[in-house]
Amino acid sequence: MSFTELDHHYMARAIELASKGRFTTAPNPNVGSVIVRDGEIIGEGYHRQAGGPHAEVLALRQAGHLASGATCYVTLEPCSHYGRTGPCALALVNAGVKKVIVAMLDPNPLVAGKGIQLLKDAGIDVQIGLLEDKARALNPGFLSRMERKKPYIRLKLATSLDGRIALSNGKSQWISSAESRSDVQLMRAQAHAILSTATTVLSDNARLTVRSEGLSIPSLDDGSVRQPIRVILDRCLKLTGQELLFSQNGPIVLVHDKQFKPAFEHPQLRFIALDADESGLNLNDLLSLLAEEHINDLWVEAGAVLAGALWQAGLVDELIVYQAPVLLGDKAKAMLQLPDYSELTEAQHFVWTSVETLGPDLKLTARLKPCLPE
Amino acid sequence: MSFTELDHHYMARAIELASKGRFTTAPNPNVGSVIVRDGEIIGEGYHRQAGGPHAEVLALRQAGHLASGATCYVTLEPCSHYGRTGPCALALVNAGVKKVIVAMLDPNPLVAGKGIQLLKDAGIDVQIGLLEDKARALNPGFLSRMERKKPYIRLKLATSLDGRIALSNGKSQWISSAESRSDVQLMRAQAHAILSTATTVLSDNARLTVRSEGLSIPSLDDGSVRQPIRVILDRCLKLTGQELLFSQNGPIVLVHDKQFKPAFEHPQLRFIALDADESGLNLNDLLSLLAEEHINDLWVEAGAVLAGALWQAGLVDELIVYQAPVLLGDKAKAMLQLPDYSELTEAQHFVWTSVETLGPDLKLTARLKPCLPE
Repeated sequence: MSFTELDHHYMARAIELASKGRFTTAPNPNVGSVIVRDGEIIGEGYHRQAGGPHAEVLALRQAGHLASGATCYVTLEPCSHYGRTGPCALALVNAGVKKVIVAMLDPNPLVAGKGIQLLKDAGIDVQIGLLEDKARALNPGFLSRMERKKPYIRLKLATSLDGRIALSNGKSQWISSAESRSDVQLMRAQAHAILSTATTVLSDNARLTVRSEGLSIPSLDDGSVRQPIRVILDRCLKLTGQELLFSQNGPIVLVHDKQFKPAFEHPQLRFIALDADESGLNLNDLLSLLAEEHINDLWVEAGAVLAGALWQAGLVDELIVYQAPVLLGDKAKAMLQLPDYSELTEAQHFVWTSVETLGPDLKLTARLKPCLPE
Repeated sequence: MSFTELDHHYMARAIELASKGRFTTAPNPNVGSVIVRDGEIIGEGYHRQAGGPHAEVLALRQAGHLASGATCYVTLEPCSHYGRTGPCALALVNAGVKKVIVAMLDPNPLVAGKGIQLLKDAGIDVQIGLLEDKARALNPGFLSRMERKKPYIRLKLATSLDGRIALSNGKSQWISSAESRSDVQLMRAQAHAILSTATTVLSDNARLTVRSEGLSIPSLDDGSVRQPIRVILDRCLKLTGQELLFSQNGPIVLVHDKQFKPAFEHPQLRFIALDADESGLNLNDLLSLLAEEHINDLWVEAGAVLAGALWQAGLVDELIVYQAPVLLGDKAKAMLQLPDYSELTEAQHFVWTSVETLGPDLKLTARLKPCLPE
């Protein structure tokens, strides 16, 4: 398979379009498409919201009758199944497209090569694999759920230079800068779900919602900002339903030890009962269950115990640290509870994917598993 | 005073020359000089080593008889006193220089305007203040000693992302990368003195010398690399003279509580006796004393106690953190012992002057007092 410089250019545009959907597509993947004829883009589209039109369909609509004989660039294999919308592969065939260039196959077992086959059977020239890495990077959560049967986990920590997340008395407002806190809202808004704990909800009176004032976050068809599902680990069911968390819009899942029985109901709330042992709720079981419930990715905001447990278990796919230039000292609260290592080799060094400044703070990102699956 | 673009260009070159002396000039300041005639540089020089020729003298030697009627750019006021070399101001007069542009006055009371006066009295056109900030930045240690009567303090810390400097069992080799450790050697080599503690010497068997293999560090006239003076806080005189520290070249100062009496001698070693109270040796007394002994700057490599004490007392002029992308957890040793703050406002946020990468690590530098004196 050899692709031209122009092919790269059009696929890069399709990827750029796809990323516009990142605040709204969950649980669907981000997909972008460009239709080109005689060296000119005649149609563009991206998937915006589950239930809404797919990228290829929007691009075909824009291209109209010119699509006949044209080339379609699409970041993900066109679908072949009748879901909430008709199969895109069929739409491309019906429009008379001559060639389709696809960045990557769809790992969704409902598609998985069937879209490509449908195109080929209709005599369309199909090429696969252009900018595949960049296309995969559009959808780490969707790919993780499809390929690993668990969500993609981003662990977020906001710390001082000396790795502290609060004073000994619990005060943490504000260690990080206003710029960092705005960025956290943008990251939350792109997450499918937020994972936290009852301890964090109680100690910070945390709402864990997206507060979009002043931020340009694309909204859903109904004009609202999509709120991530809030998944709260509450082993012993300490939350009462009276917390600020419950007075905010958006679905909530309380995950508890199956030995405890829920004592209240709430219209936004579901309970998930899990096995637990002395080390807590079984996190692997939780992740499998959340993937079954179509949750692509989790944005974790929690204290040192959950953060440490996820890290130690190797479950963190991406580490994001907002580090403020301030020193809080040894009495302040540590960012991560880990075992008492006896050798430095027990702690894995990793590599920063990006180092940015946000006002006075640093935003440090490490993608630990850039090419899922592990 | 108005300076031309060319003036800026020549002074920038003089500053560049001055910085070449930074591994060797202590206790003298770094000084560079350029002599220009008819738009051409006819002489350049920088001060390399105490007792050796000053920058202006070297530049005059290179210019020879062409110096007559030329302009001299110099980063520090030419000296007017007979020290180990003759007064540079007189040399400039004798060479028939027509104009002298000086970046900054010499705060040394032996000079302090007298060099300028000598030039003016000889009818030379003198202008002062070109690129003064950059000239000051060449010599924070010298300026601190002259203007504040204490050395300039750089606190160096090598930590994990979560602010740990060793495992609970003391192991710390190696948290930071080979690139960071090389950079530490370069920084040590530029320091006039290193400040550490008996605890660090004993627990790490630390030598605290410059190991120059593989590094391009300019040497002294005798071919050796200048070793910083090692100033070790040893309140109760725990060191015996048998430690690896004493088997390495270079002067050592042991600072102890005056209630204890030294029990051994060593050819490289001097003792300084100080007052102490329950919080330890009096650090302000120590700094005054070190300044009196002509120590310009201290590079501090120590544990959480001394680092915390200096930080808390506001004595740190520059913070340099080598931060490795690794997480060691809450049981590992904290980088800084500070009081148990009850409000976040008790901890001052600061601003990073530079953020660099050294292999996988970050090197974070904050100049807390960029314009001495405070």
